Amino acid sequence: MYSPTIQKLIDLFSKFPTVGPRTASRFVFYLMRLPKEEIKDFLNSILNLKKTIKICSFCFNPFEGKINLCPICQDVTRNRSLICLIEKESDLISIEKTRKYKGLYFILGGLVSFLKKEEIKKLRIKELEERIKTPQKFGILDASFKEIILALNQTTEGQGTGLYLERVLKPLNIKISRLGRGLPVGAELEYADEETLSSALESRK
Amino acid sequence: MYSPTIQKLIDLFSKFPTVGPRTASRFVFYLMRLPKEEIKDFLNSILNLKKTIKICSFCFNPFEGKINLCPICQDVTRNRSLICLIEKESDLISIEKTRKYKGLYFILGGLVSFLKKEEIKKLRIKELEERIKTPQKFGILDASFKEIILALNQTTEGQGTGLYLERVLKPLNIKISRLGRGLPVGAELEYADEETLSSALESRK
Amino acid sequence: MYSPTIQKLIDLFSKFPTVGPRTASRFVFYLMRLPKEEIKDFLNSILNLKKTIKICSFCFNPFEGKINLCPICQDVTRNRSLICLIEKESDLISIEKTRKYKGLYFILGGLVSFLKKEEIKKLRIKELEERIKTPQKFGILDASFKEIILALNQTTEGQGTGLYLERVLKPLNIKISRLGRGLPVGAELEYADEETLSSALESRK
Amino acid sequence: MYSPTIQKLIDLFSKFPTVGPRTASRFVFYLMRLPKEEIKDFLNSILNLKKTIKICSFCFNPFEGKINLCPICQDVTRNRSLICLIEKESDLISIEKTRKYKGLYFILGGLVSFLKKEEIKKLRIKELEERIKTPQKFGILDASFKEIILALNQTTEGQGTGLYLERVLKPLNIKISRLGRGLPVGAELEYADEETLSSALESRK
Repeated sequence: MYSPTIQKLIDLFSKFPTVGPRTASRFVFYLMRLPKEEIKDFLNSILNLKKTIKICSFCFNPFEGKINLCPICQDVTRNRSLICLIEKESDLISIEKTRKYKGLYFILGGLVSFLKKEEIKKLRIKELEERIKTPQKFGILDASFKEIILALNQTTEGQGTGLYLERVLKPLNIKISRLGRGLPVGAELEYADEETLSSALESRK
Repeated sequence: MYSPTIQKLIDLFSKFPTVGPRTASRFVFYLMRLPKEEIKDFLNSILNLKKTIKICSFCFNPFEGKINLCPICQDVTRNRSLICLIEKESDLISIEKTRKYKGLYFILGGLVSFLKKEEIKKLRIKELEERIKTPQKFGILDASFKEIILALNQTTEGQGTGLYLERVLKPLNIKISRLGRGLPVGAELEYADEETLSSALESRK
Repeated sequence: MYSPTIQKLIDLFSKFPTVGPRTASRFVFYLMRLPKEEIKDFLNSILNLKKTIKICSFCFNPFEGKINLCPICQDVTRNRSLICLIEKESDLISIEKTRKYKGLYFILGGLVSFLKKEEIKKLRIKELEERIKTPQKFGILDASFKEIILALNQTTEGQGTGLYLERVLKPLNIKISRLGRGLPVGAELEYADEETLSSALESRK
Repeated sequence: MYSPTIQKLIDLFSKFPTVGPRTASRFVFYLMRLPKEEIKDFLNSILNLKKTIKICSFCFNPFEGKINLCPICQDVTRNRSLICLIEKESDLISIEKTRKYKGLYFILGGLVSFLKKEEIKKLRIKELEERIKTPQKFGILDASFKEIILALNQTTEGQGTGLYLERVLKPLNIKISRLGRGLPVGAELEYADEETLSSALESRK
């Protein structure tokens, strides 16, 4: 129905996370209505992203700067005996916003659903092992990890990936912990599942 | 629009929890279509409820039986140093289903939203204090409470009621605990609020 | 988990339309907390329903009164050449509320999903045919139907039942009409399905 | 929290329709992970959009081609006595998909909520009047409009804009019609509002 140029861009936007064809077409019409300078600004911002954003050599966090470590990894006041494993970049931001965590991070790059070999390959598991064993090779000179926190989703995928990581990381002989399970803010007992309620009872304080 | 008899019953059903006038009218038409014997069975079941159900003299749990204590309070294998405060009857069932709790209960009978005197009066707070101080007066001979668990909703009301109870129960000098906060089963970091995520980090294990 | 008397009543409430076991248990606890007089009022209202409510001999509309016709069928100012077929009692109320329809009704008693014999038997189809052919036998002396309106849901069940009725009623040689399809109040073109949008275009005015 | 380059792009994506900051950040991380060639393809597609897409001189429909009329306006088999007013580009696609409409279109460019002067100015109302009066000036040589279809949302905005257009277009002395109101596919009588049900009864057939 749409002209080929429009359809092409709808297809590309449909690959964006959470975007379906209907939203994608709204994006295209939005761009079509945008003044030339704003389009230019948008295109330049994307080019800049590729040019100026580096990926931290230790934790894979994207950042801007001259050296190879992100501001968090550079920050000598952070606790370098703790490393927090997270699925993706925005999870790092979520945890930073709590202001409760002062250790380092490592971005895994995904979660696996059925522990298929090909899927597991996409995760940065070798990279993780190397960084925990020899952090100085990746720019963190004075780290000595005593706890690995698996800060993954409490979904089947998050739990499966967690179990797999525990097995892989066991030989390193470092304490492995997971996020506490319990009732979230706003929850009512009546709608809590049994597993969550069990955990909330056990972790009462 | 409806005849007075129908409207009257719609009004009564509209007072049931979660029921609005539309659902109430569906209930009335459902009853109208029900065969006589089923209506009789329904009416008798309600009458039976009032006749045979007792309220436990210790924990206010509704039950059937000859003595004045509910099966949980009668059960000598349960831990009589623990008492779990809950808002309502169905919360007791929710916790029993986890099979993780082996102490006694106390049904508070509600939560308060703004700590108004009239609202607080509706809660069984005096009854609670009496049962914790002198459980033998209410049929529990060998109890000696060492921990009071506030198992209330993680809502503003649940937290407000919890704070109020902590103040009231403080003079009893018994440890007061609350359900652990954290990520529930199925939760994703991305959608967790900061407070929940903070708690999940702190209660990691 | 619940005592037998409570469980019995939960089971009976779970048969009510839209009610699941969780809501059913809330109903039971609600009744348990209700003062004796209110329970009595509730039980009497149900008994009254069965005692005082009659079913209209022509249209099956429940009503209160001395004769056998409901107020709508009794009302000589209503157009007795129109008969509107509806699934259930509350649909009659919905249409009355529009104040746009001034003919008679007939409550079919349900919809059928797959045109199974047993299902079709539950509908008042014979009763409908008799009332259209010889309305005077059922208390409507001066009717002569010129249009039968199928005011059924626009769901698969509603449409299937409509097709079946059209076949059954064809030999009567009376005009059969259906509710107009189109965009409802509040609808946006973007979210309308093709069939609805087609109908809205065709019935433009 | 994010680096300035990332934050800039998050801000730009947050202006896209339906996109909030959380989704915008997911878009940015998605682009960051995209291989160079795919980024290039994406940027080129946006540039192409601006280069190759023309806006139809008659109906404002975006298209690709050498002349100034879109394929629909060029198509001599379409009924040039009908013009269908729509809010936006995707509404044209929605109506084309029904295959029920064979006239021309005009894209209004928006709806107004409170008939404020500034808002009305943003709509292509003068452009519409010119095209209806002298279509040949805009490339449609043989048109002679006999019906203007207001195919706008059934929302307060759509209806307000429709009323305003009726007043503006009245002097042209051409029949003005609106989309038919009624029950959409899948609708149940029980959940229909009174206005929709009234329309469905009136437009029965």
